[in-house]
Amino acid sequence: MADTGWPACSKSLKGVILDLCGVLYDSGECGGVAIPGSVEAVKKLKASDLQVRFCTNETQAARPAFVAKLQRLGFDISVSEVFSPAPASVAVLQDRGLRPHLLVYDGLLPEFENVDTTNPNCVVIGDAAEKFTYQNLNDAFRVLIELEKPVLISLGQGRYYKETDGLKLDVGVFMKALEYACDVKAEVIGKPSPLFFQSVLNNMGLQPHEALMIGDDLVNDVGGAQRCGMKGVQVRTGKYRPSDESHPTVTADGTVDDLAQAVDTILDQRR
Amino acid sequence: MADTGWPACSKSLKGVILDLCGVLYDSGECGGVAIPGSVEAVKKLKASDLQVRFCTNETQAARPAFVAKLQRLGFDISVSEVFSPAPASVAVLQDRGLRPHLLVYDGLLPEFENVDTTNPNCVVIGDAAEKFTYQNLNDAFRVLIELEKPVLISLGQGRYYKETDGLKLDVGVFMKALEYACDVKAEVIGKPSPLFFQSVLNNMGLQPHEALMIGDDLVNDVGGAQRCGMKGVQVRTGKYRPSDESHPTVTADGTVDDLAQAVDTILDQRR
Repeated sequence: MADTGWPACSKSLKGVILDLCGVLYDSGECGGVAIPGSVEAVKKLKASDLQVRFCTNETQAARPAFVAKLQRLGFDISVSEVFSPAPASVAVLQDRGLRPHLLVYDGLLPEFENVDTTNPNCVVIGDAAEKFTYQNLNDAFRVLIELEKPVLISLGQGRYYKETDGLKLDVGVFMKALEYACDVKAEVIGKPSPLFFQSVLNNMGLQPHEALMIGDDLVNDVGGAQRCGMKGVQVRTGKYRPSDESHPTVTADGTVDDLAQAVDTILDQRR
Repeated sequence: MADTGWPACSKSLKGVILDLCGVLYDSGECGGVAIPGSVEAVKKLKASDLQVRFCTNETQAARPAFVAKLQRLGFDISVSEVFSPAPASVAVLQDRGLRPHLLVYDGLLPEFENVDTTNPNCVVIGDAAEKFTYQNLNDAFRVLIELEKPVLISLGQGRYYKETDGLKLDVGVFMKALEYACDVKAEVIGKPSPLFFQSVLNNMGLQPHEALMIGDDLVNDVGGAQRCGMKGVQVRTGKYRPSDESHPTVTADGTVDDLAQAVDTILDQRR
């Protein structure tokens, strides 16, 4: 037990997966601010022999845009290291010969640049925010209801999130709306979907027990990674709440103050 | 069996409840058209010793407006004979001291004229159509999520309906969206809710077995009335489909071509 628990498990690790928002930075006006110590922590991790990937449920912007934002905050990060639902959905679409009707935020459209959207045979929804108009929902509904076997792909299943001006309805709410309208079950791409975590492991060429997820979201980051066979550590930044430490169904393998402490603990064990 | 089945049951009837759209008239441009024979049928029914009420899930217009439309089509109908979800919800609101945040079509607002909507402690949604914007849904969500015990009242639970320009998402879809966002179960007012049918029976002072519902919607009109202990007869007009006659869970007590045939059959049995 001592060898497999946190932080002893750090010895056998080959890769670490980091959530972005709430772990590296806090969102907010002016594009957000780096969480103290996190720029240095990413640098240390990448200087080690561990593989590093970033895994986010961000679906309002294409990767080049939000990676550039993180670089401006000082992070050593590149697009090829980042896994987000949109490119994962593109792989699924291409694999299954699906041509989507897209109901996503304009900023996300570049991710679908090379996808055939003519004569759609499925619907993909992301966090479209103000683009979730009655007309746009009705258009997506009409595509689905006309299909013999409706396919609805949702980039996440969140209920709501917090912005500086208050709570905002997230993509999961509109996924449920279309599910009910068409009597169909959506396929969710993004954390905590096991398929999504597996795609990151595949990219690193690692087995689940060789990887650790660090996130601020107990259910989607930590619980999702654990259901995949990985270890999951929660940071006390971002959307962390004290009640997470006595959650009824998810128990993190470890809880640390922030990314800096997580990385120091991992690297200490490996010396 | 012969005495209680259709049409023999007509002998012991004291009241008949009629659905509106699809039974009296077909909706469409210019306010719709009367279904042939239905104006005369309503007249005959009201000239008999039977009580007559009208029961609709209409939630885009206040009763005076759509009753005036029906009068223009030639029907003998008055507001006091019509039961629709909005006034039923007003009774519930007043009974429970609830002050609603309203997300309904502008045309329905007159029904809520005398309702206190300050400092809301519940949300009422109707078929708001184009008013189901992201902003309006978010506003309703924020009211609910702030409440210690969120109360969501939905005027119907339909998935979609047909208009001349195609299928349109109905209120049930947005009810499901808010249910998921706030982890709450909506209270549905309208057919097929037993409470709604019971309010019509109460108004007539009748027991369920003394009343018959005539509608075009097998599940909401016929099935709903039957679950209340009434007889339910389906007309082959409006949204009737041939597959209704072999529906897996609902079997009408009788199926007739239209309202004219239903009324003639009832009155013939009573001679």
